[in-house]
Formats: sequence, structure tokens, C-alpha cells
Amino acid sequence: MKLKPLGDRIVVKAAPHEEKTKGGLVLPDTVKEKPIEGIVVAVGAGKINDDGKRQPMDLKEGDNIIYSKYSGTEVKLDGEDLLVLSERDVLAVVEK
Amino acid sequence: MKLKPLGDRIVVKAAPHEEKTKGGLVLPDTVKEKPIEGIVVAVGAGKINDDGKRQPMDLKEGDNIIYSKYSGTEVKLDGEDLLVLSERDVLAVVEK
Amino acid sequence: MKLKPLGDRIVVKAAPHEEKTKGGLVLPDTVKEKPIEGIVVAVGAGKINDDGKRQPMDLKEGDNIIYSKYSGTEVKLDGEDLLVLSERDVLAVVEK
Amino acid sequence: MKLKPLGDRIVVKAAPHEEKTKGGLVLPDTVKEKPIEGIVVAVGAGKINDDGKRQPMDLKEGDNIIYSKYSGTEVKLDGEDLLVLSERDVLAVVEK
Amino acid sequence: MKLKPLGDRIVVKAAPHEEKTKGGLVLPDTVKEKPIEGIVVAVGAGKINDDGKRQPMDLKEGDNIIYSKYSGTEVKLDGEDLLVLSERDVLAVVEK
Amino acid sequence: MKLKPLGDRIVVKAAPHEEKTKGGLVLPDTVKEKPIEGIVVAVGAGKINDDGKRQPMDLKEGDNIIYSKYSGTEVKLDGEDLLVLSERDVLAVVEK
Amino acid sequence: MKLKPLGDRIVVKAAPHEEKTKGGLVLPDTVKEKPIEGIVVAVGAGKINDDGKRQPMDLKEGDNIIYSKYSGTEVKLDGEDLLVLSERDVLAVVEK
Repeated sequence: MKLKPLGDRIVVKAAPHEEKTKGGLVLPDTVKEKPIEGIVVAVGAGKINDDGKRQPMDLKEGDNIIYSKYSGTEVKLDGEDLLVLSERDVLAVVEK
Repeated sequence: MKLKPLGDRIVVKAAPHEEKTKGGLVLPDTVKEKPIEGIVVAVGAGKINDDGKRQPMDLKEGDNIIYSKYSGTEVKLDGEDLLVLSERDVLAVVEK
Repeated sequence: MKLKPLGDRIVVKAAPHEEKTKGGLVLPDTVKEKPIEGIVVAVGAGKINDDGKRQPMDLKEGDNIIYSKYSGTEVKLDGEDLLVLSERDVLAVVEK
Repeated sequence: MKLKPLGDRIVVKAAPHEEKTKGGLVLPDTVKEKPIEGIVVAVGAGKINDDGKRQPMDLKEGDNIIYSKYSGTEVKLDGEDLLVLSERDVLAVVEK
Repeated sequence: MKLKPLGDRIVVKAAPHEEKTKGGLVLPDTVKEKPIEGIVVAVGAGKINDDGKRQPMDLKEGDNIIYSKYSGTEVKLDGEDLLVLSERDVLAVVEK
Repeated sequence: MKLKPLGDRIVVKAAPHEEKTKGGLVLPDTVKEKPIEGIVVAVGAGKINDDGKRQPMDLKEGDNIIYSKYSGTEVKLDGEDLLVLSERDVLAVVEK
Repeated sequence: MKLKPLGDRIVVKAAPHEEKTKGGLVLPDTVKEKPIEGIVVAVGAGKINDDGKRQPMDLKEGDNIIYSKYSGTEVKLDGEDLLVLSERDVLAVVEK
């Protein structure tokens, strides 16, 4: 069983909320809009534009990303915590 | 008797609100915007763009989808609970 | 005497607010935005786009539709209750 | 002395607020947004689009229209009550 | 010293707030959005569109206009009360 | 050291808040949105449009302008009070 | 480990909040929206437009910029304070 996100949405497996992640990315508590680290597990086909063409997606499966804590919609699939969010709510890819 | 949704709308037969669905999709109670699983029973012809062409639809009848709890408008047709919502409010297709 | 709606508006003859209509469509009381069944009695020529062309209309006279209770503007013409609303506020056509 | 409305505006001579107009159009008191009957006395040249062309106007002088009570701006010219409003706030033309 | 308004702005010399102007235009006190009569003393070159071309202006110097009381920004230049406002906030030209 | 504003922004050297400026421009205290006189000291390259071309700028260095008091962001550079604001917030050029 | 910002976002290394920076840029306390000085450490590939092309970016790595205090999302990477923000929230480049 797999989620296939619609339009410009992606499915992300949220990383556990540790104060310091393995990769060295620390997310401070004092910021207004907390970013979270996660791994992209599914990518939509892209939004269809007014001319009927799809916008290409910047992200691909396996990308390690940071996104705002308050983005997207949580679902639990086969026991796994997942988040469906729009690519435009993703801040950056973390390259290691 | 059948509903033919206008523009980019679809008609969805809402799945019962169980804590865990057959497919293994669990929808947590703690999330802000609760997603619901359902089956697409009718698909609109697509929104007409400014150039007079229709946007193609990503969904088709029979698709098993998840969508936000607060989307759309409920109707009851021949004893069946249905929801009319816009395709852009659909989060993802559940592939089994 | 007849109403000719402007742009993408239509004129609808609202069906009486029965709990169950003849066609079998039941509109639950518990929903946020109550849909209502009605018959299209006049259709506008369509909105004029920025390129000066009109958007085609999806609806035609005689269509049996459902629309949100809070859409449009009520008028009474020659003793008949009518509603002027935009086509984009129509949810679906009911096919019998 | 005459008003020449700008863009997509029109000038309307508001009909007196009778409960039932001569034409048979009755405007119920219970509706949220009260429509009013009036006669178009001046029509703008149309909004200029981004490509420099004007949008054509659907209305012409002499049209008998209904529009929302809360639309437009009232002016009194040579003792006559007039209303300047945008064509997009006009609901329908009343054909007799 | 002269003001050259930017984009689609105009500069207007506001007429005195008399209950009845010379031209016969009376502005009622009971309306929500009070229109004011004035004379156009400067006209901008027009807004630059996305394609780099300017939108033509409908108004010219010397036009006698009515506009909403709450539009624009007041300035006093060489002892004269002026108002800088956008052409789209002008309701109509008063032709005498 | 110099500020190079991004997009359609400009940098303005605010004139002192005198009740009457040298040029004769008086800014009344009773207006809602107070305009201020200043000199343009830097002009951005212009906003990049969707087609990848830049919008031309109407202002140039040395222009004497009036702008709304509540526009822009103040910075102090080498002891000088400067304001970074968008060209669309500039009301007019003052020609002397 | 490096952040690769998505779309028109950039990553900025915030300068320390001193009352007067080395370059001579002083950021007053009394302003509504405090600008901050920082150095661009990563630049996104640019937003993808509706026609599928990317908007070019005005900023490049190493640019010394000022931006609004309330823009963007803070992250800490390998002990360094970083901010992910959109290029359109950058006010100006500081040239020395």
C-alpha cells in the first residue's frame, strides 16, 4: 500500500523530533516557525498549468528535506507516520 | 439517479470513520486537519481555462483517495452518503 | 417578463425545502453548507475573458442542479421564487 | 450635465423602493443581499486589459437591470438619484 | 513646482465640500462612501504591464471627475489642496 | 558603501520632517496616510516578470519624490537615514 | 553538509545583532520592521514559472544583504545560525 500524492504534493516520512539530528542539523526552539527534517517517500506528478502542461517537480524520492512544522496533513500508513505537503512548503534539501 | 459534478469537482463516497481502515491507513486524532479515506464515484469534466480549454483531471472513478475532513459539501443520494469536493482538495491516491 | 443573467450567472427556480425530494436526494441538516436542489431557468452568455472571448457555460436551461444554500441572491418574479447565482457556485447536475 | 462612468462602471437610475414594482418583480425583505431594480442611464467604455484592449460591456443605456442593494456609490445629479456601480455587480437584465 | 504622479495615479484639485456644487451635483450625506467632485491637474504615464507596455489612461488634465472621499493621499502644494489617487478609484467624469 | 536595492525597490534619503519644506510642499497633519518628501539615491534593476524580462523602472537617481509615511524599511548607512521602499509605493515626482 | 534551498529561496548567515556593524550600517531600534545584515551562503535554482522556465535569481553566494528581521525560517546547521528566506524578502545588497 502506497500513497501517490496529487498535483505538486509530496509524501514525507518525518524524522523523530530530537534536539540534534544525526546529520548535525539543530532546530532551535525559539523560532516562530519550526522547521523539521524528513525524507521524501513519494512525489506528485506536478501541478497542471492553465495551458494543460505539468509543472516539473524539484524534489525526488529519497531527498532529505527541511520543512515548516505547521505544513501539510499527517497520515499514518501501515504503522508509519507520514505527512502530505505541497512542494512549495519545503524550505531546502539537506545535502550530506 | 446520478450526480455529475461541475468543473474540477468530484463526488466521493466517504469511507466509515473507523480508527483503522481495512487498508491499514490510520488517521490520527491529534492532527489539525483530519484526512478521510473515500472512493471517487464521479469526476467532473474539468475547469474551463481562460483560453476556453478544459484542465484535465488527475482522478478517475474508482480511485481510493484521502482528503481533508473539512473539504466539500455533503449530500445524501438514494440513501448513500456522498461528498462533492474540488480535486485540488484531494491529498493523495491510496494504491493497494 | 424574464431575467437574463449577466456573465457566468444563472437563474434557478429553487425546489421546495423538503427533507426528502422526489428524486431521492436527501439533504442532511448537520452539514455546514446546505446544498439545495433546483432547476436552471436562465443561463448567462458567459464571462468575457481578458482576450475578449466568452467562457462557455457548462449548464443549460432545464438542468436539475444542487447548489449551496448560501449562494446567490433571491428575487421574486411574477410570484415565482428565483435565485441568481454564479455557475461556479453550482456543485453538480443531478441526472435522473 | 451628464456622468460618463470610467472603465467597466455604469450609471443607474434607481427605481423607487416599492414592495412590488410595476413589472411584477418583488424583492423579498428576508434576503441577505437585497436586489434593486433600476434603469441604466450611462455605460463606461469598458475596462482596459493588460494587452491595452478594452473589455466589451454587456449592458447598454436603457437596460432594465437588477443589482445588489449594497453595490456602488450614490450621487445626486440635477435632482436625480443616481448610482455608479461596476457592471460585474449587476445580477441580470429584466426583459419585459 | 508640479507633481508628476507615478503609474496610473492622477493628481486632483479637490472641490470645496459644499452641499450643492455649482454644476448641480449634490452629494448626499447618508451614503456609505461619499463621492467628491474635483478637477484633474496631472495624469500619470500609466501603469507598466507585465509585457513592458504602459496601460493607456482614460483621464486627461482638466477633466471634472467624481471620486470616493476615502481614496488617495492628500498633499498641499504651494498653498493648494491636492489629492494623489489611482485612476481606478475615479467613478465618473462629469460632462457639462 | 552603497545599497543596491533588489527588484522594483528604491533607496530614498528622507527629507527632514518640517511642517513646510523649501519647495513649498506642505504635508497636512490631518491626513490618514502622511506623504513624505525625499530624494531617490538608488534604484533597483526592476522586478523580473514571469517571462524572464525585467519591468523598467519609472524613477531614477536624483528624483525628488513624495511617498507614504508608512511605506518601506528604514536603515541608517554611514550616518545617513535611508529608506528602502518599492517603486509602487511612490506617489509622485515633484518637479521644480 | 549543506542546505540547497528550493525555488526562489536563499540561505543566509545572519550577522551578529550589533548596534553598529563593521561596514557602517546602523539598524535603528525605532523602526517597525527591523532590517538585518547577512551573507548569502546558498541560492535556490529559482521559481519555476507557469511556462516551465525558471525565474533567474538576482542574488549570488557571498552577497552581503539586508533583509527584514521577521522574514524566513531559522535553522542551525553544524553549529552555525542560518536563515532560509525568499529572495523577494531581501531589501538590498550592501556594496562596499
